[in-house]
Amino acid sequence: MPKPLNIGMIGYGFMGRAHSNAYRRVNNFFNLEYQPVLKAVCARDAEKAKAFAETWGYESIETDWKKLIARKDIDAVDICTPNNLHKEIALAAAAAGKMILCEKPLAMNSEEGAEMVAAVEKAGVPNIVWYNYRRVPAVTMAKQLIDEGRLGRIFHYRAVFLQDWTISTDLPQGGEALWRLDVNAAGSGVTGDLLAHCIDTALWLNGSIDTVSAMTETFIKERKHNLTGKVEKVGIDDACAFLARFKNGSLATFESTRYARGHKALYTFEINGEKASIAWDLHDLHRLSYFDHNDESKLRAWRSIHVTDHGGEHPYMDHWWVPGLQIGYEHSFVHQVADFLEGLATGKPAGPTFRDALETQQVCDAVLKSARAGSWEKVG
Amino acid sequence: MPKPLNIGMIGYGFMGRAHSNAYRRVNNFFNLEYQPVLKAVCARDAEKAKAFAETWGYESIETDWKKLIARKDIDAVDICTPNNLHKEIALAAAAAGKMILCEKPLAMNSEEGAEMVAAVEKAGVPNIVWYNYRRVPAVTMAKQLIDEGRLGRIFHYRAVFLQDWTISTDLPQGGEALWRLDVNAAGSGVTGDLLAHCIDTALWLNGSIDTVSAMTETFIKERKHNLTGKVEKVGIDDACAFLARFKNGSLATFESTRYARGHKALYTFEINGEKASIAWDLHDLHRLSYFDHNDESKLRAWRSIHVTDHGGEHPYMDHWWVPGLQIGYEHSFVHQVADFLEGLATGKPAGPTFRDALETQQVCDAVLKSARAGSWEKVG
Amino acid sequence: MPKPLNIGMIGYGFMGRAHSNAYRRVNNFFNLEYQPVLKAVCARDAEKAKAFAETWGYESIETDWKKLIARKDIDAVDICTPNNLHKEIALAAAAAGKMILCEKPLAMNSEEGAEMVAAVEKAGVPNIVWYNYRRVPAVTMAKQLIDEGRLGRIFHYRAVFLQDWTISTDLPQGGEALWRLDVNAAGSGVTGDLLAHCIDTALWLNGSIDTVSAMTETFIKERKHNLTGKVEKVGIDDACAFLARFKNGSLATFESTRYARGHKALYTFEINGEKASIAWDLHDLHRLSYFDHNDESKLRAWRSIHVTDHGGEHPYMDHWWVPGLQIGYEHSFVHQVADFLEGLATGKPAGPTFRDALETQQVCDAVLKSARAGSWEKVG
Amino acid sequence: MPKPLNIGMIGYGFMGRAHSNAYRRVNNFFNLEYQPVLKAVCARDAEKAKAFAETWGYESIETDWKKLIARKDIDAVDICTPNNLHKEIALAAAAAGKMILCEKPLAMNSEEGAEMVAAVEKAGVPNIVWYNYRRVPAVTMAKQLIDEGRLGRIFHYRAVFLQDWTISTDLPQGGEALWRLDVNAAGSGVTGDLLAHCIDTALWLNGSIDTVSAMTETFIKERKHNLTGKVEKVGIDDACAFLARFKNGSLATFESTRYARGHKALYTFEINGEKASIAWDLHDLHRLSYFDHNDESKLRAWRSIHVTDHGGEHPYMDHWWVPGLQIGYEHSFVHQVADFLEGLATGKPAGPTFRDALETQQVCDAVLKSARAGSWEKVG
Repeated sequence: MPKPLNIGMIGYGFMGRAHSNAYRRVNNFFNLEYQPVLKAVCARDAEKAKAFAETWGYESIETDWKKLIARKDIDAVDICTPNNLHKEIALAAAAAGKMILCEKPLAMNSEEGAEMVAAVEKAGVPNIVWYNYRRVPAVTMAKQLIDEGRLGRIFHYRAVFLQDWTISTDLPQGGEALWRLDVNAAGSGVTGDLLAHCIDTALWLNGSIDTVSAMTETFIKERKHNLTGKVEKVGIDDACAFLARFKNGSLATFESTRYARGHKALYTFEINGEKASIAWDLHDLHRLSYFDHNDESKLRAWRSIHVTDHGGEHPYMDHWWVPGLQIGYEHSFVHQVADFLEGLATGKPAGPTFRDALETQQVCDAVLKSARAGSWEKVG
Repeated sequence: MPKPLNIGMIGYGFMGRAHSNAYRRVNNFFNLEYQPVLKAVCARDAEKAKAFAETWGYESIETDWKKLIARKDIDAVDICTPNNLHKEIALAAAAAGKMILCEKPLAMNSEEGAEMVAAVEKAGVPNIVWYNYRRVPAVTMAKQLIDEGRLGRIFHYRAVFLQDWTISTDLPQGGEALWRLDVNAAGSGVTGDLLAHCIDTALWLNGSIDTVSAMTETFIKERKHNLTGKVEKVGIDDACAFLARFKNGSLATFESTRYARGHKALYTFEINGEKASIAWDLHDLHRLSYFDHNDESKLRAWRSIHVTDHGGEHPYMDHWWVPGLQIGYEHSFVHQVADFLEGLATGKPAGPTFRDALETQQVCDAVLKSARAGSWEKVG
Repeated sequence: MPKPLNIGMIGYGFMGRAHSNAYRRVNNFFNLEYQPVLKAVCARDAEKAKAFAETWGYESIETDWKKLIARKDIDAVDICTPNNLHKEIALAAAAAGKMILCEKPLAMNSEEGAEMVAAVEKAGVPNIVWYNYRRVPAVTMAKQLIDEGRLGRIFHYRAVFLQDWTISTDLPQGGEALWRLDVNAAGSGVTGDLLAHCIDTALWLNGSIDTVSAMTETFIKERKHNLTGKVEKVGIDDACAFLARFKNGSLATFESTRYARGHKALYTFEINGEKASIAWDLHDLHRLSYFDHNDESKLRAWRSIHVTDHGGEHPYMDHWWVPGLQIGYEHSFVHQVADFLEGLATGKPAGPTFRDALETQQVCDAVLKSARAGSWEKVG
Repeated sequence: MPKPLNIGMIGYGFMGRAHSNAYRRVNNFFNLEYQPVLKAVCARDAEKAKAFAETWGYESIETDWKKLIARKDIDAVDICTPNNLHKEIALAAAAAGKMILCEKPLAMNSEEGAEMVAAVEKAGVPNIVWYNYRRVPAVTMAKQLIDEGRLGRIFHYRAVFLQDWTISTDLPQGGEALWRLDVNAAGSGVTGDLLAHCIDTALWLNGSIDTVSAMTETFIKERKHNLTGKVEKVGIDDACAFLARFKNGSLATFESTRYARGHKALYTFEINGEKASIAWDLHDLHRLSYFDHNDESKLRAWRSIHVTDHGGEHPYMDHWWVPGLQIGYEHSFVHQVADFLEGLATGKPAGPTFRDALETQQVCDAVLKSARAGSWEKVG
């Protein structure tokens, strides 16, 4: 029987659901030493906390996150709040000796992030950031193919994360559902929300970024603010694109926007190596595109690998159904919990740790600085 | 708080997992009057039953399905056994006044199926068959589009279900994992296993089939039998294709095989109507292809609808994540449980009932008869 | 300098254009011993013949095909008339010692076809039938891969040819542009027009067909006839589907219709072998889909080969542009002329000859007979 | 009967073939006032000129382009030489009062380009640059959809042109076939060769570019030079990416490389507007992807339009075969000739004129300057 690991979750939004689902499901599919127990959920509004607790089976609620952190029966704190609260909660949780699972981006900026890294490392508490896309099986497989040396020298990396949900001028900013549009809660727009995902994956797959040249745009300059009721200036970036040079000599383009009509969540990346290329697309996340120059020449082509095979062929898939049957978005969170728990058991922590995520934050900072200054900026 | 509905499951294989997962998850995502409770799982081997119960949280185990059915604390019996046991269990469960959720195909043949229909209808117990693909959102949406009259008169229906997992001559037949290759346990090969899915969907979307002309083939004539240890004749059909005429005047082709190299679970269907056409593919189950002749002529084209929108646009999807993020295979079972429970609450039973599934069985029987006789056969 | 080969063309419709274009272009791209010279075009209407001759550069016109055949300066007769004239013209041309390039299908039926074969073989004149799709590079490549033994034992063949241009009840039948809807001019509907293409390819790629079971349908029973001005019974098949068993033991489904809303000219085929599978699609004719079970298992996938490579890798493509730049439909005719001329030079005739095409006719006859009788029929 | 327009072509490489083919074919498919006559081809090597003239039917050859330009019987000069000769030839041709059809890019740089514009405008001679991709029907259709106002305000433009043919270090630079790798002949690498196409299309579809920030890279620093036989520094850019802001307020990313393993000629662009989005891909050039937010919401999706319809629906396609049958790369040149001739007849010159192409050159110059300086640069 697995050992219980008591979870205290702060926040109850979209990510609160995704994490709760992962905790509940992981032991049905993975044979692990630990089993998450949904001990408490915390929200300022007790009614909402109760409703969430009932739906997901949390044993108790809190309305003050400091009380949650103070509880003896909590082993791990899951931070699902807007970005502007990450640092304070993380510092307190680390001080209390709790493990921390923090939503991305790690922080509002690198300074905050550095404080958080220092805190968890000083406290020696296990820590991880929810950059879940690393654990989509097709993405994990991309990492394996690269680590096996199949791509050779890398020439190019390109990634986009395209959405279209903020095009309407009628959409307000701020408040519970729309804090991502409020610069005070989110820190930035697509850079921290979407490009951070692209950057995390890129750093994982292709190593560190050296320099960037960026531009940002806010297409709709003013929106009604849900917290004040007034029309206010929009402080976030609606779109951001940047050029980058990786330390390994490869060139990159990154772009994200919430104004790409027709795309709901089109996160794609492509890597071109001397020997092979890889591409992936969140809209069909169960497939990996692969081109291998070592193939017999007349048969060289892009393959669309249906990443659902068993027998150890495709990452994580032995735990699910049968070959040919796809899994979805939510499974990446289950995998992250499985790996986190495995890391606790083996002592080899699963990434991205706070330290890993700090590098993503540094790239974001350099991007935003470059966009403001109109110049190339060095990362870190 | 939802009312408990106590589930007793018989069987613990691939489908046992898929159903258990559905029962555990449904109330996290759907607001329902009932909540399944995993009361007991039954398997002849107590060790295996225990392990399964632990993984999935069943409260108890049984090793004799008759005892399970006799238990007062069981409201609904879920039949996940090989096909040759469906009838006997269903008849006993109906006699005991239990609701029944039965794996597909309903029975070994129409005669058995008719007995089962009579039994549940006499007993007046809620009953459903796990033709889960109806509840893939894209497939449900196809049904909606047809019901809205968007396709007009139907000219053509075509469906295939292609796999490739039995091509090796080394693969044995029979026993726990491979009962689908043993004619005594399965009744037929691809006809009952795979074409039954295609037929269920087709009857649901396009109405009754009138006549069929079929051919079957067993490519590998003998395989070692796991139960006897001897090389024995293979009694199932490895492949089956048939022509059909629907009662609405449309023509159809159906084909299934486990010898289609390169396809793991390629269930596809396409419907061509006077005004519009629809196509779907299990390998990318979150997409629906749609062509509408009413579109402005120069823009007429097949659309690939990413069936993940909210706001009531796309069936079931409001219950899951956010637009653009796909769900997977297993969700079709969650939807089936949700609809079954909703049917209990509203008194409008969700399909396919045993009676609905009997028609699929009749088509299968006509197909197998046609293949033996080399003649066109009338269904039913 | 290549030797002139004087062409006399009978007919000037869609195929007249496609053939004329091929004759004019072939020597720009292929280095050949012969060069087609557009000597004369024949049509009953002198004005139309003249206009066509001017557009395409024919040196002269005829209004009586017998005169054309009698001309000393004609080496080869190209038959582009409706099907009901093929036999008479071919017999006369053979008797006059002319080479013959005949549009498909060869004839109205096998009896006519057999006469034509006898005539050209007795006369010893080079002959070919315009089943052009064999010479789409991706299709030719499929043939090469099969001949190299890459697929192993074949289990399945499936082909469809789907169109949607006759759905409107307002469309008349017969006359110049619509002779394909007039059973007296065409002999049959989709069977001779579209399935004949599918069958020719199938026989070429997969050998002879043994038996068939077919159904046909005429969805719109009456249409105005352009020649009589009256509403008349439609004699052609609007749709035809058939099951087949090849002599090599593989199973097949074939289907064609002009009532598949959304498809203009969707000719697709797929072949599943023990070791590999191949698929092709006329709507993206420059691509070949290929799945090879010999690939490293985790990388097994369908590849979409862009059949545009040079260096001898991809059939015919060295003659065209540069890798990555696709050719189109019309090029298959250029290739056919190139191969025909090459056959003249080498003495190894390019197929399909009249004799090859006769077998396609025999399959068509068996299909139509099966559809009428409702029984399985043997081919030939 | 159309009036003859006597063509004198200078150069006989890949583009020489593409243009010659276009001249020979255009009157077979388009009803025009003018008909190109292949009067003379010019190359320094008389043997090569003769061979080319024989293949394509040029009436005569020249070995000195100045003599060609001096000939009275030449109406139009087609410049197919390496880029470093464009200016001198164009200036001479303009001075001689010849029409000019010049390969792209217009010149080695904007200064040269401006001289050429001044020359043709002073001479008043019809002039055009072979940015052929504008006349791929799907691209022309994109222009029509934009001009019809279907996209609304434009937010984003992105384009890439990816190739992989120069990855090998063994590939030499310079000389006849490889002048594109020699900076003295080509002026730049992918910027002038490939990005110029992307820029031309972008200016046509989305208006002027205001500012750019670029980076370039030369991955292989030295290559054997075919003209000197020595290993020499590579002066061209192997890869170039840039950010751009259009004058209409939209943001853009552009990228080109010859080091994108797996892509032969992957030119793609995508435009995101407030109301609709468009995407296109040279590897499947007969398709246009289109997303229309005005569609009924549950049916909103990307459509893959097979741009082959007749009846005036799809640009240029009425001139070719029948719906569903695709054309290829070379047809874009035929369309360009048709439009150029139509422009002569109507007096409304077809673009891109030298003046249009000068703007592309200015963007290229700003891109290269930005890459050198590491700063944002203004265009023009």
